[in-house]
Amino acid sequence: MDFPSTLLETAVTELSSLPGIGRKTASRLAFHLLRREKDYAERLASSLLALRRDIHYCPICHNISDTDICTICASPQRDRSLVCVVESIKEMMAIENTGQYRGLYHVLGGRISPIDGIGPNDLKIESLAERVADGGIAEVILALSTTMDGETTNFFIYKRLSDYHVPVSILARGVSVGDEIEYADEVTLGRSILNRTRFDDQFIN
Amino acid sequence: MDFPSTLLETAVTELSSLPGIGRKTASRLAFHLLRREKDYAERLASSLLALRRDIHYCPICHNISDTDICTICASPQRDRSLVCVVESIKEMMAIENTGQYRGLYHVLGGRISPIDGIGPNDLKIESLAERVADGGIAEVILALSTTMDGETTNFFIYKRLSDYHVPVSILARGVSVGDEIEYADEVTLGRSILNRTRFDDQFIN
Repeated sequence: MDFPSTLLETAVTELSSLPGIGRKTASRLAFHLLRREKDYAERLASSLLALRRDIHYCPICHNISDTDICTICASPQRDRSLVCVVESIKEMMAIENTGQYRGLYHVLGGRISPIDGIGPNDLKIESLAERVADGGIAEVILALSTTMDGETTNFFIYKRLSDYHVPVSILARGVSVGDEIEYADEVTLGRSILNRTRFDDQFIN
Repeated sequence: MDFPSTLLETAVTELSSLPGIGRKTASRLAFHLLRREKDYAERLASSLLALRRDIHYCPICHNISDTDICTICASPQRDRSLVCVVESIKEMMAIENTGQYRGLYHVLGGRISPIDGIGPNDLKIESLAERVADGGIAEVILALSTTMDGETTNFFIYKRLSDYHVPVSILARGVSVGDEIEYADEVTLGRSILNRTRFDDQFIN
């Protein structure tokens, strides 16, 4: 596609470097910007610029934040003795949305993945160990994906924290709520039988 | 979804106001921007800003352009006696991509659509009439969509230009190249029989 303007060409090229956006979608977005009022493009551009330039990372949990320390770490209402370890901010948001967790978080920034060249030193594991070493933490909850990489990372963190004698737990594995048992995979179903819970325990919350 | 940062929240809101981008995609894009280097967000933001702020519209054909007069209108290699009327820059680019047309264009900015409240005065029809009135134009080619709105616009332009006694043509209607006749719609097939061309005429180009 030959664009009649290099400004348009550049905008389309930049937009199409975003994930999931090809040249066709990028040019639709660019034409949309051209049709909309000038303020709109300015608002969009400045929000993207501000996002990348002004964002802070919480020095405690590595969550993103507008302030120096993130709102969760700064909140007096959170249980500071619980630390939930997540891969990224997305998983943190997913857990927050359940409304079931009132402790703090620790954002690793990924999981150990030899294939992608990500080792333990690329993740915030040492900073987690420091938090635990500083004391005051009663439980570390590992909320990583239940993939091979996630389990490897779980095991690495578990070994790394073993000196501090802090209880380390993982998310319960089991059949999804709303799933048909018939179609559940064998491994999950097996885990869910082994780790069955008492019927009356499910009403605790 | 509750974002841990208002900067992130704002960026996601702005991105999700783009067509075809929901909140889920918007947050994926925002997280992508956070992971990429700072330069990248700056390049993207400034390209979007420049697109909307610095773009020119050609005063002759209303094509977008980096310069005052667009490259097509300014080119000495184009046939200045032919004007092809298109709805938007997208259709102009599609025709340019065929490599079959060496005349000039006239970008209407849409088509007459009473349902969407678009009347003849919202389009660049008067400026087309002025171009024709100025003389030097041997043929006006109407390359609008073959929808009801497009045909209405064709007819309106045809009537508007009738005083100037300039030949007005429309794109040939007929079966698409590569189509199976069996599946062609009746109206198109009917038109393609009525407007059949001589077998040896197709090799003219």
